[in-house]
Amino acid sequence: MPDLIIAPDPDAAGLTRQVVGTDQTGAPIALHVVEERPLTIWLNGREIVTAMTIGDYPQYLALGFLANQGMLAADETVTGVDYDPELDVVVVRTDTQTNYEEKLAKKTRTSGCAVGTVFGDIMEGVSGVSLPDAQVRASWLYSLAHQINQMPSLYLSAGAIHGTVLCQGDQPLVYMEDVGRHNAVDKIAGWMRSTGATAEDKILYTTGRLTSEMVIKCAIMGIPVLASRSGFTAWGVELAHQVGLTLIGRMRGQRFQCVAGEARLVRDVAL
Amino acid sequence: MPDLIIAPDPDAAGLTRQVVGTDQTGAPIALHVVEERPLTIWLNGREIVTAMTIGDYPQYLALGFLANQGMLAADETVTGVDYDPELDVVVVRTDTQTNYEEKLAKKTRTSGCAVGTVFGDIMEGVSGVSLPDAQVRASWLYSLAHQINQMPSLYLSAGAIHGTVLCQGDQPLVYMEDVGRHNAVDKIAGWMRSTGATAEDKILYTTGRLTSEMVIKCAIMGIPVLASRSGFTAWGVELAHQVGLTLIGRMRGQRFQCVAGEARLVRDVAL
Repeated sequence: MPDLIIAPDPDAAGLTRQVVGTDQTGAPIALHVVEERPLTIWLNGREIVTAMTIGDYPQYLALGFLANQGMLAADETVTGVDYDPELDVVVVRTDTQTNYEEKLAKKTRTSGCAVGTVFGDIMEGVSGVSLPDAQVRASWLYSLAHQINQMPSLYLSAGAIHGTVLCQGDQPLVYMEDVGRHNAVDKIAGWMRSTGATAEDKILYTTGRLTSEMVIKCAIMGIPVLASRSGFTAWGVELAHQVGLTLIGRMRGQRFQCVAGEARLVRDVAL
Repeated sequence: MPDLIIAPDPDAAGLTRQVVGTDQTGAPIALHVVEERPLTIWLNGREIVTAMTIGDYPQYLALGFLANQGMLAADETVTGVDYDPELDVVVVRTDTQTNYEEKLAKKTRTSGCAVGTVFGDIMEGVSGVSLPDAQVRASWLYSLAHQINQMPSLYLSAGAIHGTVLCQGDQPLVYMEDVGRHNAVDKIAGWMRSTGATAEDKILYTTGRLTSEMVIKCAIMGIPVLASRSGFTAWGVELAHQVGLTLIGRMRGQRFQCVAGEARLVRDVAL
């Protein structure tokens, strides 16, 4: 088993619950299902969003969400990330009012609502991204997929969950899972920001589909390679070309498809 | 093939696009992938959200989204649903300011941001729900799953998409697909509201996981039975008990699990 910095902990207290029911014959069954709870994220004095999450690593989730939404610039100094488990609230504090709060105040004056801002801000955040040169070997992809598929996880034990893994070469480093579609990747972004991890030598592996949002998050995180066992959307592919991301999908056994950023891919396995 | 009111149209112009890439051997490939585009939903003079959608039935999506978010009460008179394909905008108009807009104005004054309101409003919307008596036969579930799995769809032809089907007895009626997780069910809600379809005799079938959000949407739509081939989250199960919804998951072949609302289930197939 590989040695991860953060690995799934399918037996952790509080992540699953037993529920009872019946099967097709009417026989009673008991099954373990993943938890799902609201977490409200604040940025300084402003309530931003309520995410539905499995509940682990709330500080990483809050930090990564704000960073990936373009609400927390890379040079912003975070002075505190306070989690209140009773209120299900995380407050991320910066030493000055953030750029996002200024924009939001302006937007609120004009249209009265903040929700629409977010999308425009994200696209703006991505337009300046230029991803570094890097290499991704086919042998690493095969090894990563194999290790990740074998590793004990909430997905294997309870299902109904998404996984995202930060990798370096053929080593999985940080493996996050969550019920919320993009929470798993946001938790990785929060971990990277907290630890000052480099992005240019990493590969992001996800169990989910390669949509525009996944591509945007990966690009904002500065990671040059995004890989998945699932398929693509057209805009995901288009954005990957736009930001120069290597996008690899439909990984099954020794098969995969590369639809953008081919130059980083080294086919080092004879097939 | 069953006779649906709305069936998937995998060959429709504008829903898929051809992208090119390479496979694991370096050989060129061309694949059809689903489109994904932003649709901004307005309620009267207020921008509410930008959803990522495949792009079909934008009016149903907007109407259903607002209804399922508790922003458009059942007795609200909708005077227009205007779609502008060039701006990717739908404006839903009501004859008076809605209850939601009043709440939002109040909320904006207190916290300055609307996003957090939504969650509280949804939970409030669900607390008053009481679902009608109804019957769901195991034979219907088997027949529905079989018909839906065989039917030509974007899922079968391009992948990376979710499907939701409104059913009555063993008949699938309206089958929507979308890249956005909850758009497919919102499009069904919009269709139901537009056509005045009854809810108490319907079954909602989804390909996706049975999370709190799916349960809430189904309950707000007034549909007493929610079924899926996927699994459950703990809060989804808890909410189903709370609103009296019949929740059936992990449907595979002749197997399924019922974890709430058992009383409506009739096991009419000898196993």
